[in-house]
Amino acid sequence: ALRGARKMEDYGRFLALLASALLVGFVSVIFSLVWVFHYREGLSWDGSPREFNWHPVLVITGFVFIQGIAIIVYRLPWTWKCSKLLMKFIHAGLNTIAMILAIVSMVAVFEFHNARNIPNMYSLHSWIGLTAVIFYSLQLLLGFAVFLLPFAPVTLRATLMPIHVYSGLAIFATVIATALMGITEKLIFSLKNPAYSASPPEASFVNCLGLLLVIYGALILWMASRAHWKRPPEENVKILRPIGETPEGTEEESTMADGSSADKSDLRINSEAARKQNLRLDEAAQRSTM
Amino acid sequence: ALRGARKMEDYGRFLALLASALLVGFVSVIFSLVWVFHYREGLSWDGSPREFNWHPVLVITGFVFIQGIAIIVYRLPWTWKCSKLLMKFIHAGLNTIAMILAIVSMVAVFEFHNARNIPNMYSLHSWIGLTAVIFYSLQLLLGFAVFLLPFAPVTLRATLMPIHVYSGLAIFATVIATALMGITEKLIFSLKNPAYSASPPEASFVNCLGLLLVIYGALILWMASRAHWKRPPEENVKILRPIGETPEGTEEESTMADGSSADKSDLRINSEAARKQNLRLDEAAQRSTM
Repeated sequence: ALRGARKMEDYGRFLALLASALLVGFVSVIFSLVWVFHYREGLSWDGSPREFNWHPVLVITGFVFIQGIAIIVYRLPWTWKCSKLLMKFIHAGLNTIAMILAIVSMVAVFEFHNARNIPNMYSLHSWIGLTAVIFYSLQLLLGFAVFLLPFAPVTLRATLMPIHVYSGLAIFATVIATALMGITEKLIFSLKNPAYSASPPEASFVNCLGLLLVIYGALILWMASRAHWKRPPEENVKILRPIGETPEGTEEESTMADGSSADKSDLRINSEAARKQNLRLDEAAQRSTM
Repeated sequence: ALRGARKMEDYGRFLALLASALLVGFVSVIFSLVWVFHYREGLSWDGSPREFNWHPVLVITGFVFIQGIAIIVYRLPWTWKCSKLLMKFIHAGLNTIAMILAIVSMVAVFEFHNARNIPNMYSLHSWIGLTAVIFYSLQLLLGFAVFLLPFAPVTLRATLMPIHVYSGLAIFATVIATALMGITEKLIFSLKNPAYSASPPEASFVNCLGLLLVIYGALILWMASRAHWKRPPEENVKILRPIGETPEGTEEESTMADGSSADKSDLRINSEAARKQNLRLDEAAQRSTM
């Protein structure tokens, strides 16, 4: 009963964090719309500043909010009864949507710049932003080829998983840092009379949007890096767990979940040799908490 | 022999990453000095732009480079024979130096602003930067009180350790994001004829500095988040390890190192009850890889 109570408390804590992250992410999207419609000229696709305005709206909606949800989608406890393959499709699908929105958001800036003869790709924001989009696309492509298609050998998956997880979190953090640079640039360029330094309402409002993005990032990265909130390993592996290890459902579960990142559901075990290899992979997986 | 070879390979990989991080961090400091002396007016403390120039130099030296080293100082294998207490002093000492440099760097900006009647604290850079310095100071104070002074109970240490580790990494990432915003601001404000958008040599040079900071951050966070590069637990705990667990020196060591983050050297075990508690804390520690 004590164990059950502790588990419920932990579950409650996860739900509270999830609700906070969704709220902060949702409010960030609303803030980007208020910025664009209340303080700026709104949205359109005609080479005017209204086309530029798609840039912050699509980045915050897709590249920040949706990417954040894609990162923690395996953590949702009510999805643990769904097949791992379905969850992979959802993870890949959300990241694909985020990538498309990020690319469209870049097109909006290039078209706006070209219509006004403003140079492209001169700022640190643009350098890091484009690098992030390229790495994000490579990550998606490689993730699809290695973890979704059924061809990659188990050893390759186990080797690449820690790198996949770390790259994902690093790209997400970099995207938020790039958004903060973008906010800084846009407020300096567009606030003229009064200037950014005079702190007009728009300046304070959009600064708050920047703070919200940092809070959203911190919440998502906390949830993603707690080992005990990981999706537990699949049934077929549990059955073949060596004698002496604790079965699921006991207090040790959180420790077991530690090993789930090497995607044990993909390990098809049907011989003693394979079982031994699986144990070695378990160990490798243990190293890939982040 | 195979195990030994694998260990050496892993050790070599750690050294290569460490050397890369030190090189990238060192080159970043050099870049900040070249920026300030070659492209700007140099350094002095007289309310002029030369006083402002201390800001990027001290932030990159202290708040980025030294903080990064403070984060990974427990990971250096040749320090594992030193006492944990000594390493805590080095960790706290490096962070104190970084904090002092960060505060002096802020004073330089405030004095420069005041001498020129430029408003303070209006930009997103200043909001997030000041927040980071405040959180960093709180983190240092709390870390000192809980982990260095001998008064905090073991349960409190075990509870706070994952939060201490995560906050440390999150603040470090936020500091780098803030530096990128600062670079963006400074290049827009100081490059006038030719402007930032015309990509003069200074613009490209300082953009490269920004990229170096991102690479430095990514290397430090990778080293800090690999569980198998953690400092192994202390001797007194190893002796009391329950029967059936693998002793040190075997292949399982990396897994054992997983549990070292709850600072087992602080667990003074002299009864069966304490031993049982220790096992529960082990489990808690397992959750705090990041």
